[in-house]
Amino acid sequence: MSRFWSDIVHSLTPYVPGEQPKIDGLVKLNTNECPFGPPDSVVQAIAASSGDALRLYPDPTGSALKDAVARFHAAQGITPTHVFVGNGSDEVLAHIFMALLRHPAPLLAPDISYSFYPVYAKLYGITLREIPLAEDFSIRVDDFLAAGPNGGIIFPNPNAPTGMALPLAELCRLLDGNPDSVVVVDEAYVDFGAESADQLVTQYPQLLVVRTLSKSRALAGLRVGYALGQPELIEALTRVKDSFNSYPLDRLALAGGVAAMDDVAWFQDACARIVATRSRMTAGLQARGAQVLPSAANFVFATFPGRDAEAIAAGLRGQRVLVRHFRKPARIAPFLRISVGTEAQTDTLLAALDQVLPTLGRR
Amino acid sequence: MSRFWSDIVHSLTPYVPGEQPKIDGLVKLNTNECPFGPPDSVVQAIAASSGDALRLYPDPTGSALKDAVARFHAAQGITPTHVFVGNGSDEVLAHIFMALLRHPAPLLAPDISYSFYPVYAKLYGITLREIPLAEDFSIRVDDFLAAGPNGGIIFPNPNAPTGMALPLAELCRLLDGNPDSVVVVDEAYVDFGAESADQLVTQYPQLLVVRTLSKSRALAGLRVGYALGQPELIEALTRVKDSFNSYPLDRLALAGGVAAMDDVAWFQDACARIVATRSRMTAGLQARGAQVLPSAANFVFATFPGRDAEAIAAGLRGQRVLVRHFRKPARIAPFLRISVGTEAQTDTLLAALDQVLPTLGRR
Repeated sequence: MSRFWSDIVHSLTPYVPGEQPKIDGLVKLNTNECPFGPPDSVVQAIAASSGDALRLYPDPTGSALKDAVARFHAAQGITPTHVFVGNGSDEVLAHIFMALLRHPAPLLAPDISYSFYPVYAKLYGITLREIPLAEDFSIRVDDFLAAGPNGGIIFPNPNAPTGMALPLAELCRLLDGNPDSVVVVDEAYVDFGAESADQLVTQYPQLLVVRTLSKSRALAGLRVGYALGQPELIEALTRVKDSFNSYPLDRLALAGGVAAMDDVAWFQDACARIVATRSRMTAGLQARGAQVLPSAANFVFATFPGRDAEAIAAGLRGQRVLVRHFRKPARIAPFLRISVGTEAQTDTLLAALDQVLPTLGRR
Repeated sequence: MSRFWSDIVHSLTPYVPGEQPKIDGLVKLNTNECPFGPPDSVVQAIAASSGDALRLYPDPTGSALKDAVARFHAAQGITPTHVFVGNGSDEVLAHIFMALLRHPAPLLAPDISYSFYPVYAKLYGITLREIPLAEDFSIRVDDFLAAGPNGGIIFPNPNAPTGMALPLAELCRLLDGNPDSVVVVDEAYVDFGAESADQLVTQYPQLLVVRTLSKSRALAGLRVGYALGQPELIEALTRVKDSFNSYPLDRLALAGGVAAMDDVAWFQDACARIVATRSRMTAGLQARGAQVLPSAANFVFATFPGRDAEAIAAGLRGQRVLVRHFRKPARIAPFLRISVGTEAQTDTLLAALDQVLPTLGRR
């Protein structure tokens, strides 16, 4: 308690990101980063912007990046007027909560979902109502439609940490049944096998699609994210952003982001490699007794029936392999979220499991 | 109006940053950037971080940068526990408003000051009470102390856009008379001739000092700012930041920021050069009939009595020289804010004035 703090600060429970260890040599499968670095085109674009020009403020509108995002999604009817850019999709999400989800009726989100959503809701005084996932961990559109009035709906697709995708037809059913509040589809992991809702943006004025360059474009370290929506929604985000920080994206993030969006060949190849490794990793986990949820993401959510997931995570850490375990909610406590690494990292993971599993008792 | 927007969005009046022209060849004296680029040490540090490591999230705590900031201010008793870092001082200020200035009593700020403060106040529902500057544009501490209960006090030192500094003894008098709410001293321009309050941080638990690398370290394009305060205040900022965006500083901003804080020789030389050019520019303006407020910043605030400042700014733009004019409040409408450029840019400015002034009538 502090007399200096604003009231809200006392009640905040900040988000806790996955560990970023400061020691080298760990196999880091805990934060869903891309297992290989970004393409040369990105590194070169950053180098070309990293001289005297750093003395000048960046473009506050990020227009070159909006143009590049629109080029990538042009076949889906996206133009720069449909694009909002931010300092990682986490900042984009924060502005979405402030600008579009603060209403008297509660915000709806799955009970098992990105654990930052309840944190944003608390920060902005938004009531969050959690809708339980089905027993098989899928999102049930009917439960959202039956929940009564809402001030917005948000979920990741594929969902995190399950990795499971909602088919686009189901999303359309949700949008058709929920025309009067914003529906945010957080597509951080969409490039690894799910269908993007980018193609629905021009049809549905209440749809906002959020994307990041952190995963499929290997740029978690550069902090670039964006949202796609009709200009009415983009305008709300822009007003809040321009009341918060005129220049959220620095010159290097803008330059690197443009290059990353334009290097489509690298992007497609990277996604294909990760999807291939995910198949082999899933098979390897299953061969060791795991149940693995069907993943459309760059991670899998796996449980070893009868075994303590937290103990497995600790054992793997002893073998210098980091994975992520969530204690809450209780339904996912038996699971581990394991990022898809390189082929070699996958071998290391499986070998480490062969060391760890025999040392652990069954419950 | 939009049914999708949160209520607050309808009433926002976003901050309008100075123009960032997309054409080359302009003498840009409108946004107080450093007239020369950052040192090689910064460019090299960025290059060294701009490879495969970009695939990994940055350190969410920014600890290397906090360490570097603490090193720079070590003689004033600053340690890393006194440091908060953010995506430019604008983001740092936004978090300060949310975390420390949202109270039932009004926030006090000068009536002529950084025009982003009222924007933040509106965004977070804070009542802002403006305290008029003295006739000579100085901040009168007695007027702040006599204003009655407050939920915080904020002002730039040197003030913007006047460039005038408040002596440290006056700041101490304010702090001694106002022990129960946070006093934010925004030192964006302090390195060009004012006394920093960094040396007061360990004495006053209610003091928060905000600084940026945009001006004296030539890194407006990299977006790095920080706050200095006692751990109780830093903790509030950290809670809000971790409820908003875990990773506000990308890997390149962190690396460049560390190098910039450590390159003290470059920094001292850059400040000295700008102060020297400011003297020559001030003399040149005065020789052309201007009244120039005493500046401790990297800009001057000047008026040409009997002339229309907006017309002068337009005339200078015709000569490809950008300066900044504020229409409001009325008391500063006769002034122009002119950034200190290079020696050559100063010559260009003065020559352009010699072209423009004779074409303008007197009012």
